[in-house]
Amino acid sequence: MIERYSLSPVRDIWTLEKQYERWLKIEIAVVEAFEEKGIAPEGTAKKIREKAKINVERILEIEEEVDHDVIAFIKGVTENMGDEARYFHMGLTSSDVVDTAWAIGMKEATKMILEELKSFIKSLENISLKHKKTLTVGRSHGVHAEPTSFGLKMLTFLAEMKRNYTRLKRAYEGIKVGKLSGAVGNYANISPEIEKLALNKLGLRPTEISTQIVPRDIHAELFSVFALIGSGLDRLATEIRHLQKTEVLELQEPFKKGQRGSSAMPHKKNPIICERLSGMARLLRSYTIPAYENIVLWHERDISHSSVERVNIPDATMIMFYMLEKSIYLIDNLVVDKERMLETFKRSYNLVYSQRVLLGLIGKGLSREDSYKIVQENALKAWEEKKDFKLFINSDKRITDHMSEKEIDELFSNEYFLKNVDEVYKRFF
Amino acid sequence: MIERYSLSPVRDIWTLEKQYERWLKIEIAVVEAFEEKGIAPEGTAKKIREKAKINVERILEIEEEVDHDVIAFIKGVTENMGDEARYFHMGLTSSDVVDTAWAIGMKEATKMILEELKSFIKSLENISLKHKKTLTVGRSHGVHAEPTSFGLKMLTFLAEMKRNYTRLKRAYEGIKVGKLSGAVGNYANISPEIEKLALNKLGLRPTEISTQIVPRDIHAELFSVFALIGSGLDRLATEIRHLQKTEVLELQEPFKKGQRGSSAMPHKKNPIICERLSGMARLLRSYTIPAYENIVLWHERDISHSSVERVNIPDATMIMFYMLEKSIYLIDNLVVDKERMLETFKRSYNLVYSQRVLLGLIGKGLSREDSYKIVQENALKAWEEKKDFKLFINSDKRITDHMSEKEIDELFSNEYFLKNVDEVYKRFF
Amino acid sequence: MIERYSLSPVRDIWTLEKQYERWLKIEIAVVEAFEEKGIAPEGTAKKIREKAKINVERILEIEEEVDHDVIAFIKGVTENMGDEARYFHMGLTSSDVVDTAWAIGMKEATKMILEELKSFIKSLENISLKHKKTLTVGRSHGVHAEPTSFGLKMLTFLAEMKRNYTRLKRAYEGIKVGKLSGAVGNYANISPEIEKLALNKLGLRPTEISTQIVPRDIHAELFSVFALIGSGLDRLATEIRHLQKTEVLELQEPFKKGQRGSSAMPHKKNPIICERLSGMARLLRSYTIPAYENIVLWHERDISHSSVERVNIPDATMIMFYMLEKSIYLIDNLVVDKERMLETFKRSYNLVYSQRVLLGLIGKGLSREDSYKIVQENALKAWEEKKDFKLFINSDKRITDHMSEKEIDELFSNEYFLKNVDEVYKRFF
Amino acid sequence: MIERYSLSPVRDIWTLEKQYERWLKIEIAVVEAFEEKGIAPEGTAKKIREKAKINVERILEIEEEVDHDVIAFIKGVTENMGDEARYFHMGLTSSDVVDTAWAIGMKEATKMILEELKSFIKSLENISLKHKKTLTVGRSHGVHAEPTSFGLKMLTFLAEMKRNYTRLKRAYEGIKVGKLSGAVGNYANISPEIEKLALNKLGLRPTEISTQIVPRDIHAELFSVFALIGSGLDRLATEIRHLQKTEVLELQEPFKKGQRGSSAMPHKKNPIICERLSGMARLLRSYTIPAYENIVLWHERDISHSSVERVNIPDATMIMFYMLEKSIYLIDNLVVDKERMLETFKRSYNLVYSQRVLLGLIGKGLSREDSYKIVQENALKAWEEKKDFKLFINSDKRITDHMSEKEIDELFSNEYFLKNVDEVYKRFF
Repeated sequence: MIERYSLSPVRDIWTLEKQYERWLKIEIAVVEAFEEKGIAPEGTAKKIREKAKINVERILEIEEEVDHDVIAFIKGVTENMGDEARYFHMGLTSSDVVDTAWAIGMKEATKMILEELKSFIKSLENISLKHKKTLTVGRSHGVHAEPTSFGLKMLTFLAEMKRNYTRLKRAYEGIKVGKLSGAVGNYANISPEIEKLALNKLGLRPTEISTQIVPRDIHAELFSVFALIGSGLDRLATEIRHLQKTEVLELQEPFKKGQRGSSAMPHKKNPIICERLSGMARLLRSYTIPAYENIVLWHERDISHSSVERVNIPDATMIMFYMLEKSIYLIDNLVVDKERMLETFKRSYNLVYSQRVLLGLIGKGLSREDSYKIVQENALKAWEEKKDFKLFINSDKRITDHMSEKEIDELFSNEYFLKNVDEVYKRFF
Repeated sequence: MIERYSLSPVRDIWTLEKQYERWLKIEIAVVEAFEEKGIAPEGTAKKIREKAKINVERILEIEEEVDHDVIAFIKGVTENMGDEARYFHMGLTSSDVVDTAWAIGMKEATKMILEELKSFIKSLENISLKHKKTLTVGRSHGVHAEPTSFGLKMLTFLAEMKRNYTRLKRAYEGIKVGKLSGAVGNYANISPEIEKLALNKLGLRPTEISTQIVPRDIHAELFSVFALIGSGLDRLATEIRHLQKTEVLELQEPFKKGQRGSSAMPHKKNPIICERLSGMARLLRSYTIPAYENIVLWHERDISHSSVERVNIPDATMIMFYMLEKSIYLIDNLVVDKERMLETFKRSYNLVYSQRVLLGLIGKGLSREDSYKIVQENALKAWEEKKDFKLFINSDKRITDHMSEKEIDELFSNEYFLKNVDEVYKRFF
Repeated sequence: MIERYSLSPVRDIWTLEKQYERWLKIEIAVVEAFEEKGIAPEGTAKKIREKAKINVERILEIEEEVDHDVIAFIKGVTENMGDEARYFHMGLTSSDVVDTAWAIGMKEATKMILEELKSFIKSLENISLKHKKTLTVGRSHGVHAEPTSFGLKMLTFLAEMKRNYTRLKRAYEGIKVGKLSGAVGNYANISPEIEKLALNKLGLRPTEISTQIVPRDIHAELFSVFALIGSGLDRLATEIRHLQKTEVLELQEPFKKGQRGSSAMPHKKNPIICERLSGMARLLRSYTIPAYENIVLWHERDISHSSVERVNIPDATMIMFYMLEKSIYLIDNLVVDKERMLETFKRSYNLVYSQRVLLGLIGKGLSREDSYKIVQENALKAWEEKKDFKLFINSDKRITDHMSEKEIDELFSNEYFLKNVDEVYKRFF
Repeated sequence: MIERYSLSPVRDIWTLEKQYERWLKIEIAVVEAFEEKGIAPEGTAKKIREKAKINVERILEIEEEVDHDVIAFIKGVTENMGDEARYFHMGLTSSDVVDTAWAIGMKEATKMILEELKSFIKSLENISLKHKKTLTVGRSHGVHAEPTSFGLKMLTFLAEMKRNYTRLKRAYEGIKVGKLSGAVGNYANISPEIEKLALNKLGLRPTEISTQIVPRDIHAELFSVFALIGSGLDRLATEIRHLQKTEVLELQEPFKKGQRGSSAMPHKKNPIICERLSGMARLLRSYTIPAYENIVLWHERDISHSSVERVNIPDATMIMFYMLEKSIYLIDNLVVDKERMLETFKRSYNLVYSQRVLLGLIGKGLSREDSYKIVQENALKAWEEKKDFKLFINSDKRITDHMSEKEIDELFSNEYFLKNVDEVYKRFF
């Protein structure tokens, strides 16, 4: 991932140094298990822990020669070790170390992302509560539809992110599996008992059954959830971008003091964070395809998944974390212009009440078909002549024959549209 | 979906006629709820049920005029209805009907797929049990690695499909949500109470909160799971394709009497079902991208998701069902050549025991580094000279200084590699 | 593809009957070539042409038995043929027929799409010319930027579609390749000479070199171009959807007499064609992934590409054709509200002229930094107080010290922004 | 991109420092054009060139404040500039600089990739020529089909890569476009003349028409081509991986002295470069999806494409370059075991000649149907009994009634299958 989108603490997980540290931790956990089971003499793990040195440059140097990163690591780390080196990596295959280390790294990163998602949910709760009854135009197809509350709008994101939290939590539980089952997963040279002992020390559990590696559907599930979360944030970003359009301007993403929107046009205040989120969501969506393809490995494994994962696991977790961090900032500092939201109603000549008139007529005994035609006729006139829809309603005999002016007036009230808002909120608070 | 891949009963869900039937069922459920709550007079639902007629041609004819499929449906169905037509679709918006109908259709299809997946899991259990101790070469990178059992191999698919079953079950629970919350999801003209009543009649529950539509992350989750299952089947198909290669020929997919493999070459028996599965997995993977993009709709909805779903929901469910049906047939009738599996060992000159020799030397007190070098030297000689690896081991003084011939003999036994198989099976049976 | 999106003439290419017809045409072309080269006796092709009967049901019945569609076809077609049947399919492998038939089908479909694209380009030329100097607000980030012409906007689509035409033309030339090189592409049982002769009769040329099949990068290129065109149409659809938003309403897609926008809200006029195009573009984009994966076949071929193509080749060509047909209708009947476009300028308080003031100050000798700060300050005030930007400019001493009122007035003229429009148009007309 | 896959010289293009250098070069080119056209006084460009200093830290510091990278760059670079700073960035918008700089960077990177692809084509030519008549089994569906030459196999990759070269060359010509047309592409504050002059100095031409940015279909085309090349390399890698399988072992990718294949199994020689290429191809395929989505920007631009491109343009070019570099090494050092290729024929009991027998019988006057049945019967017997197919043919009266032993012998010759190889090579050499 590029510097620009790499935020601590997730970025710190994915340095080469930290990777070697995870590898070492795993090797030592296995030796400890050997010791507990009497396979290695007492004190072996302690000695190894003392003598094992991670020297990144030296390891890379050895890799140049042996063309295998784990072997280089082992050689590098055990170079000045004594006899206890015999227990180091004993009975293991490289993937035991590599895949278990991925699990640790992904577990750590996903935990941070879960925390971040939880904070974001909190932000969404706050904004939803604050704007429970903030009247705004609901839109479908980009066209004014009917009145609703801005809080309800935000509540849909809250609900989506809570679903996503559940999904991410499940994926998180799913990825907490390592494997120490040897070259083809048959436990020939290491026992299920050792695997369990060592993995538990690392906060992991054994994969139900592994080949040479942890099966990749487990990782692909995580990538799927990132794509779901990313697309949900994209939906939110798109909503804000729409509502920040000059013609609408009901929302604005925070604009810092000193910030400049354009090198050419000093008046510009652009929703650049939102646009960035929309772009990043494309990245997260695209990462799923190779993650799915990675499932389809040959026999007990081929290593084609590896080049993909070296790039995409760090990148996806960093992007996901970055997006959530920015989303929290965005929602916590979103500029909501309630007055403007009310003014917006004027843009559609009271046409947002057309369904109420339709239902009013049906209530008066007219057929749905006839009522629809009458209302549509008046509505199209209002659009064309850019005049108040109510004027046309009040002067259409086919309507006034059935409804008094007062009855018509009542159809044009906003309270009506918010009457069930409390009911919906009860599902969340 | 093309005829060729459309199997009953899933295909029957997706006819235009059945879609209209679902729509009608929903409209009637709402009227029933109205009746229960005293909004419509007693007997309305009954009358509507009697008079509503679905005439596919007539509806399509009306659609030509009004350019809106739900309106055409309402007009068509209520054409000869009496006064009770006023309660038909009252307070609803098209999406209430369309999205709830999608939910019913997807629920039915996914249920069938779940059943199919369960059967497939049963097939995998059978084959795993049957070949628990069937010795075979484990391979990594396509290269012989170490001995394992064919049952263990199958068990990895069993485990994967069980994970997928859990995922699909969750997605299935997720999609059982409809919405009857009106034009922008604010329940202005229909109450949460009516929604709940009507949806429950249909075997659904209300979406926690909806806009004009059911949020699309719910559908995208289902598509993700299809991609996961499809890719798992692709892995299985790829495994069989590999093991059916002429040089390996340990497996063969069933070849029917009378079947012909090639129009040109009468000798051909090709793994065409497996190849078809691999291709179809590509389709399922690709369906996720538009499903994720469909999440990002404008405001309370735009209808851009619709064209995607009209194609991909039926296609994905039919493909998924087809793949599972074929996979069951495949596994239930798979030709497993156990003798050939044993012969295969000869192809790699007993090199599959190289790690055991390595560990044997370490056990004798040699360092990992020295042991590795000694064994690798002998292994490369065996490759090059195409001779039994054991011969070289037996004549390398660096080894025989530490191990007797009998000790070496013991390193070349297969039982060793299967000693933990029972342990692993216990996790599943 | 579903009925709804299947338009003639492309849909007619992809019936099963037409496929068999193409297969027969190819088989006969080969026999004709045999005849010309003296391999088959004179009159063989004529006899075959007379006796070959395509009976779809019968062929499908045979396929049930032999499980191979081409073999079933051959058996079915030659059932009542005499001795000349010996020359039918002689030396060919199934893929010779299948792949060459795909080439013919794709050639026909792509030709229709090219025609459609040409018409669409014509539509874009018309609308561009019509609105060469139609003043409208240019927007970046959804925010008013500077004045431009609506014609220029349309011209960007014209330019893009012309690039796409070139790309599609190249892909079209690329796919006009068949192969009649036998089971593994080595011409063992059929000669390069026969291949060339027969393919030329069919309007194709031989693939430079084939395996058992035509290499799939050729097909993938076509799918890539469809994704490019689809995304370009999506951009256009998105532009229109934006400009049809209630708050903007500078454009409207055609709304037919009798059309209804919503079952609930009689006032709705929704950009549903555009939204449909946006959805379909997602489909076209997603089709590229399996098309790329199809390139990676095993050895001289595996048949995993086939299930993908049976679905995606017909679907992609039908979708592409449908999208272009709708796009032409859309552009030819687009409702452009020029007055509304002018009114739109008021929404941003003359801020669209901020860069001109900036450049004006720089021109007067102020530094870019100082000028930017001065202009930004005034611009932000205009936003906040919702007042004319010019008022602030006219009363800022830091500006008026350097510019007369008349000079300032000149900075706020629209003509300035269109002065190079003719120049740009010259590149196209 | 991660260190591991970042190779010079492509990696050096994408440092932050180099990006700023490109930006500066562009700003200066514009000033030079101003000077030539008499807009800026003589000597301005020279002065700017002398005084402009790129201080990466300082620029990043300013960006913290202004939250806009180009503005920060301008402020940073002009900080100690005199009056001539007024001409710096005059009339430009940030995207003029950013997009033109992307064009320069992509041009440079793509040029390097083109060179690399050319070298790779040379490698493919060499190997094709070397193995023109190297006999090997052709396979379809992974099953032995008919004899062919290893050279022909390689030739299919040569042909594919030549097609890809043409495609990449076109995309390369396509991306050599910059834009200096101002905030919404209307040339309000900068003239088409200046654009042309400045871009020509930079080795670019003006985009036919731009919005605020260069249209993204141009970039997406490049990404498509990378996906095509990547998938072609994946096909090659997959071929080699197959032929290096222990049971086949006709090929081996180079194995360096000192290299180790597995930390557990000293005998392993794994096709790890090929597997890496297969994985990387997945990345390149996945990059196309966001590239297509990036086409669909709002109005004269939204900046959602930017986050995608900051990651994917450098990554895709680096991956592409890396893959080609490794592919050259791979092909130049590929271990081809010609003897083993001949031995392989024994694995399929001479069944690869079944079509010849079929055609032989047809030639003798038997019908295709009868001939097929007779040959298939014998072929299945050979498979089952694992005996020489020829034995069965020689003892089937239905065959020997029509053919002498000598005639049958002739059907089992390999020369027959290579007789048209020269003809095919003529198309390439």
